[in-house]
Amino acid sequence: MDLVSPNVATAGPVHSDGVIAAGAYVEGRRVANIAIDEAAGWRNKPDHVVWIGLHEPDMTLLKSLQRQFQLHDLAIEDADHAHQRPKIEQYGDALFIVARTAQLEGENISFGETHLFVGEGYIVSVRHGASTSYAPVRERCESCPRALARGEDYILYAILDFIVDNYSPVLETIQDEVERMEAEVLASAMTRAQIERLYLLRRDLLRLRNAVGPLVEVCRRLERDDLPMVRVTMRPLFRDVTDHVRTIQERIDSLREVLAFAFEASLLVGQAQETAISKKLASWLAIVAVPTAVAGIYGMNFKYIPELQWEYSYFVVMGLMLAACVALFWRFRRSGWL
Amino acid sequence: MDLVSPNVATAGPVHSDGVIAAGAYVEGRRVANIAIDEAAGWRNKPDHVVWIGLHEPDMTLLKSLQRQFQLHDLAIEDADHAHQRPKIEQYGDALFIVARTAQLEGENISFGETHLFVGEGYIVSVRHGASTSYAPVRERCESCPRALARGEDYILYAILDFIVDNYSPVLETIQDEVERMEAEVLASAMTRAQIERLYLLRRDLLRLRNAVGPLVEVCRRLERDDLPMVRVTMRPLFRDVTDHVRTIQERIDSLREVLAFAFEASLLVGQAQETAISKKLASWLAIVAVPTAVAGIYGMNFKYIPELQWEYSYFVVMGLMLAACVALFWRFRRSGWL
Amino acid sequence: MDLVSPNVATAGPVHSDGVIAAGAYVEGRRVANIAIDEAAGWRNKPDHVVWIGLHEPDMTLLKSLQRQFQLHDLAIEDADHAHQRPKIEQYGDALFIVARTAQLEGENISFGETHLFVGEGYIVSVRHGASTSYAPVRERCESCPRALARGEDYILYAILDFIVDNYSPVLETIQDEVERMEAEVLASAMTRAQIERLYLLRRDLLRLRNAVGPLVEVCRRLERDDLPMVRVTMRPLFRDVTDHVRTIQERIDSLREVLAFAFEASLLVGQAQETAISKKLASWLAIVAVPTAVAGIYGMNFKYIPELQWEYSYFVVMGLMLAACVALFWRFRRSGWL
Amino acid sequence: MDLVSPNVATAGPVHSDGVIAAGAYVEGRRVANIAIDEAAGWRNKPDHVVWIGLHEPDMTLLKSLQRQFQLHDLAIEDADHAHQRPKIEQYGDALFIVARTAQLEGENISFGETHLFVGEGYIVSVRHGASTSYAPVRERCESCPRALARGEDYILYAILDFIVDNYSPVLETIQDEVERMEAEVLASAMTRAQIERLYLLRRDLLRLRNAVGPLVEVCRRLERDDLPMVRVTMRPLFRDVTDHVRTIQERIDSLREVLAFAFEASLLVGQAQETAISKKLASWLAIVAVPTAVAGIYGMNFKYIPELQWEYSYFVVMGLMLAACVALFWRFRRSGWL
Amino acid sequence: MDLVSPNVATAGPVHSDGVIAAGAYVEGRRVANIAIDEAAGWRNKPDHVVWIGLHEPDMTLLKSLQRQFQLHDLAIEDADHAHQRPKIEQYGDALFIVARTAQLEGENISFGETHLFVGEGYIVSVRHGASTSYAPVRERCESCPRALARGEDYILYAILDFIVDNYSPVLETIQDEVERMEAEVLASAMTRAQIERLYLLRRDLLRLRNAVGPLVEVCRRLERDDLPMVRVTMRPLFRDVTDHVRTIQERIDSLREVLAFAFEASLLVGQAQETAISKKLASWLAIVAVPTAVAGIYGMNFKYIPELQWEYSYFVVMGLMLAACVALFWRFRRSGWL
Repeated sequence: MDLVSPNVATAGPVHSDGVIAAGAYVEGRRVANIAIDEAAGWRNKPDHVVWIGLHEPDMTLLKSLQRQFQLHDLAIEDADHAHQRPKIEQYGDALFIVARTAQLEGENISFGETHLFVGEGYIVSVRHGASTSYAPVRERCESCPRALARGEDYILYAILDFIVDNYSPVLETIQDEVERMEAEVLASAMTRAQIERLYLLRRDLLRLRNAVGPLVEVCRRLERDDLPMVRVTMRPLFRDVTDHVRTIQERIDSLREVLAFAFEASLLVGQAQETAISKKLASWLAIVAVPTAVAGIYGMNFKYIPELQWEYSYFVVMGLMLAACVALFWRFRRSGWL
Repeated sequence: MDLVSPNVATAGPVHSDGVIAAGAYVEGRRVANIAIDEAAGWRNKPDHVVWIGLHEPDMTLLKSLQRQFQLHDLAIEDADHAHQRPKIEQYGDALFIVARTAQLEGENISFGETHLFVGEGYIVSVRHGASTSYAPVRERCESCPRALARGEDYILYAILDFIVDNYSPVLETIQDEVERMEAEVLASAMTRAQIERLYLLRRDLLRLRNAVGPLVEVCRRLERDDLPMVRVTMRPLFRDVTDHVRTIQERIDSLREVLAFAFEASLLVGQAQETAISKKLASWLAIVAVPTAVAGIYGMNFKYIPELQWEYSYFVVMGLMLAACVALFWRFRRSGWL
Repeated sequence: MDLVSPNVATAGPVHSDGVIAAGAYVEGRRVANIAIDEAAGWRNKPDHVVWIGLHEPDMTLLKSLQRQFQLHDLAIEDADHAHQRPKIEQYGDALFIVARTAQLEGENISFGETHLFVGEGYIVSVRHGASTSYAPVRERCESCPRALARGEDYILYAILDFIVDNYSPVLETIQDEVERMEAEVLASAMTRAQIERLYLLRRDLLRLRNAVGPLVEVCRRLERDDLPMVRVTMRPLFRDVTDHVRTIQERIDSLREVLAFAFEASLLVGQAQETAISKKLASWLAIVAVPTAVAGIYGMNFKYIPELQWEYSYFVVMGLMLAACVALFWRFRRSGWL
Repeated sequence: MDLVSPNVATAGPVHSDGVIAAGAYVEGRRVANIAIDEAAGWRNKPDHVVWIGLHEPDMTLLKSLQRQFQLHDLAIEDADHAHQRPKIEQYGDALFIVARTAQLEGENISFGETHLFVGEGYIVSVRHGASTSYAPVRERCESCPRALARGEDYILYAILDFIVDNYSPVLETIQDEVERMEAEVLASAMTRAQIERLYLLRRDLLRLRNAVGPLVEVCRRLERDDLPMVRVTMRPLFRDVTDHVRTIQERIDSLREVLAFAFEASLLVGQAQETAISKKLASWLAIVAVPTAVAGIYGMNFKYIPELQWEYSYFVVMGLMLAACVALFWRFRRSGWL
Repeated sequence: MDLVSPNVATAGPVHSDGVIAAGAYVEGRRVANIAIDEAAGWRNKPDHVVWIGLHEPDMTLLKSLQRQFQLHDLAIEDADHAHQRPKIEQYGDALFIVARTAQLEGENISFGETHLFVGEGYIVSVRHGASTSYAPVRERCESCPRALARGEDYILYAILDFIVDNYSPVLETIQDEVERMEAEVLASAMTRAQIERLYLLRRDLLRLRNAVGPLVEVCRRLERDDLPMVRVTMRPLFRDVTDHVRTIQERIDSLREVLAFAFEASLLVGQAQETAISKKLASWLAIVAVPTAVAGIYGMNFKYIPELQWEYSYFVVMGLMLAACVALFWRFRRSGWL
């Protein structure tokens, strides 16, 4: 793995199944790639911080992790299966954090989950489902040892910040879609395909809001509560993440409202279209009804219909019918029915 | 009853009407099946925990229970008739908890109620209406004596957890139904049967939410308040139940919103369909009106209609009528009306 | 009045206009029927509790009451005219409580008001408008002297409980109506009479909610606040009333939501019906248009229409017309338009 | 001005432009009509209370007032122009209160504003826009010197009570209108004029709520906060005003909901009417289509149509057509379409 | 720059790119136009206040600023890119405030952002996007040295007040538009262009509310929290701004509700129009159907139709047809269909 700095090349990387990366850091520099079973040892060395990244680990791996860091049974149980709601929990000296991640796969949003265990001298991230690797976070952190040297709460911040940052492209895609939708809604009554798209957009936004919403509370607690693993000097950083999540939440809510407006507008547009069709239909029926009725009358077989005998009747009647039709047409056009 | 561990086979089980199970436990192992009338005696022995399960008991049974554990009049009165809202109440040293249970019976959800009395050394569960037996909970607890040895608050946790777990299959069934509905709503305007299903789904979700909603508060109080019967070390367990209930509540709320979207979408789809029919009707009327009017005109009986005399008029007129109809058809098709 | 226990038969009952009952109680037993003007005297005797029931009293009566118990001007003013919102107020050592009562009169709900003055050694109830007498409460209390012996706060509890109990039949009547409505809404588009009933149900529920809603706060304060007239041992009783009110409030809210769903469903049903009619109309118009147009064509008077001369044309044309009609009918039937 | 009690006839009234009344009171009796410039002098005399009423004063007057009572710059600035939201503010020892008033002018509601400055020994009311004079308040207070003797906070109460009382007739007018509307909505689909009235009612209620809403907070603070100018003994009075405002607010909210129900009901009524028309139209078209089609058929000019030759065909065909029409009519009538 | 008072003409103005104005003030008078690099020096002189105004500065400028005033990294980072939500943050001794500005550009609202750094002896404003210069604020402040002499928190107040004041014209423009819309909505069913305008108005109001909403919290914290940079004597000023923002927020909310009413009203108006058209169409069809059917009947070619032979049949039949049409017309007119 090319993320390892040269001076730890000797330390053997232990990539068992489910372990993405596991390193020990001193002063912000990776000093060794470690095996999960040695994690406690590395962690207990002074000024060492252990950072482990897992992806859908099996129970054996989690159990081994639990032994290393004395993690709480319930947290391990939670970490074993996904579909938790975003939350933050404190078990003794350790924090357990659940966050939902979102990213685009083609045109669809797929959601994943990340569970984080943070304690004195270690941080473990566990990814579930669709979620980008945290390799970029590690890379960025390692490229800036001074920041990383601040310890495990800085890494926690970096990961949360990364998760929140990743909502943005998803949201932007939806926003583009919404804006395209807006133009269409106002242009004409919606087709079934457009209604379906409107519907799916609303559902996606609902899901996104459900993923992001509880995260505000998580960040707010990291920023304000007296959690033992978060140093006071780190609070502005978490406040920044809180702000970021809130901005995203507000944008989601705005988009939801915009779509609700769009729904209402499209009801009106549809009603207006229906009315326009009714007007048109009524107008043409009226115009056609006149010659039909007149023709019917002169098609009657009464023995004595004086008009029938006159030589120019046909032309006169045809002229009158035409005049009536044109007059009607004119009138409907003027009142906007045609 | 095969749940009884062999070493208590001598202790006579006392299954009077309404008593499902009644056992005394020491160190997480059942040491005796007891009669209600001896409950107080067993409970007062050091380190003994009495666990009684009742199903729709009559007042005599409840009164006897009250005498054994000095339960409050109001709690006994509540336990006698169902239709309480989920709540938690503290009477002196005892807790009284009401929870609503839900389960599927065929296609319908049926709701039941469980009342729990918890105090130092005893726990009593009283089931009303449709609700699964807590035998599985007892079985599971007895299979794991170390956990059960923690006492009556652990049993309380196990029962609540079981109740909350049982919401999941109900919710999943509804969710499947909702997803089927979604596909149908967007495919075409709803039939009356579909509207009815949509309506019933919304009502079921409302009922489920009413059952689950107040339980959040119950769990939250068990987790946070300084209740004398809940040891501090048990709090993470109740926090876990709270999380679970909240997840279920959020899923219910999401489904409710999805159904609201579906309702709105189906209004639009219905409107679109109505408009499509109007367009089709208007188009065909127009196409048919042309030959009818023309035929009417040449059916008039005027003596002098020059066209009538010409040998090929009929064919020419027929051709023109056909051409007009085809032209109209083309035009309507092009503008999407047909 | 047959509620008077025999040992107070000598004490003259003083039923002036507006006074329904007035008694002095010792140890839960009525020792005298008293006059308003002697109320203060009776109240000041040790262990005596005065319980007075008024119905729409005039100002003279209220003033006399005020003198006896040193009631606050504003409370007396409030008690004089109805249309207060449910509330609880503390004036020095006295409580002033306003509750709205509801009951059925035929098919309609009529609302009344009860004002309660409670202080050390006395309780006064003032009824306004449609409200059942509290005679049953008095009867029940007197039949259970041990409970009644607890004093004026017990009587307060008994009256509030009675008021809340009386909401239930009203609510059940509405609920039955709502369920009947539900069946009708889904069966077919609503008639004007049904819409009116739906409308009136919603308004009734709104009124009921307005009556019940603020009562939650009243009960909650009786249960939790440190009010001097409510002994700590009475709190579970008031908590019970609070629970009861809340259950009723939740049922009202559920019914309101159900009616909102019903409204939306009936919009969809109406739309579906309109669409069905449009489809039917369009189908029949199409079926009839074919023979009409064909007949029109062969009704033209052109001199040379070859078909007219052929001997079997008529039968062939009739057959074709019939075939066309049947084909159309079949097609419309198959696509569900007919 | 006939409100002046005789013993102050010598004190010259100083009615400069914008000053409605200005008096100094001792023990609830007016001892002098004063000039604004002397206000501070009168106020500083022991047990004197100065009560000044202004109507749209100019800045000079306000500045003079400010000098007399050391009012805060911002309060004076606020008092100079209307369109403040109802609020209460404390500047040092003085209170500044803004309330919105409402009254009927013909059929319309016009809103005004009253600003109140209250401090030790003085109260100043400043009216803006449409608002009734506070002369009746002054009159009533002066007629009851004992109450008035309580001081400036009593006057404050009297004015606020008067403002709140004045909402009632406005609200009642709207309520009458709403009830008339209800009857019409349910009777038949709404005309454009009725829709407009519904719309305007909703807007008026919105405005009224905006005027009344923040006043609840103002009254609540007067009742509960530890404001130096409000003696504890006055609190029940302000609590009374709070109750009054709340009652009005609840009535407004109920009316708003009722109008929302009316809107929804009228959508359904309109839909039902549209459906009824469609049914009628479809029925008549069907009834008329039969004879038209038949007549068309026998109007064809085929040489050999056997029926045409038979002597009684005409009568038979006419009879059959009539029978068909009657049968259709009967069927439509039976299924409620006609 | 003509805003510079004569006595600082010697001090060289340093207008590097992005710096709009930078001055040092003593006792409310500008004593020098300063360069950013000297800002710390000026600020540290006793009783000097430095006021710097930037417009979309580059990072170099911000970094230099950061060095001068020891600003926090995160604040500088935020200031570098726009699209922050309005907020207030405290970093050590400095406040960082974000506000969104709104102004009209032609018919559209364009939003900008202003970031403010405030600390002991300095205030820096950073404008992003469309936003008016704060030159008028500076001008007004300099014209009133006594007020300005109060220091940096006064300047903060002046800028916030200016921002909030600038919302008013935007809001008034929207309000005018809304009122024009109201008239149109009620006059007739909406055209597509009107629906679009309604839609855009709602979206603009949503955006404006998103800009203004969080500002309430910012102002409230400036008014109430114990922030070290805001002296107690300044609080009434910030309370004034809070009031102002709240008034604007309430107006926005009212307009939003009015537009929601307008939407609903226009649904009803559209429905009413559709119904009117249906009625008209049905009426005319009925009127025309009568002569058509009759004429069809007498156009039949039966050999024996007695009426055909009678000399006056034609006139009688024509008369009857006319009578029927007139009767129908009359009836429809009377029942309001025509």
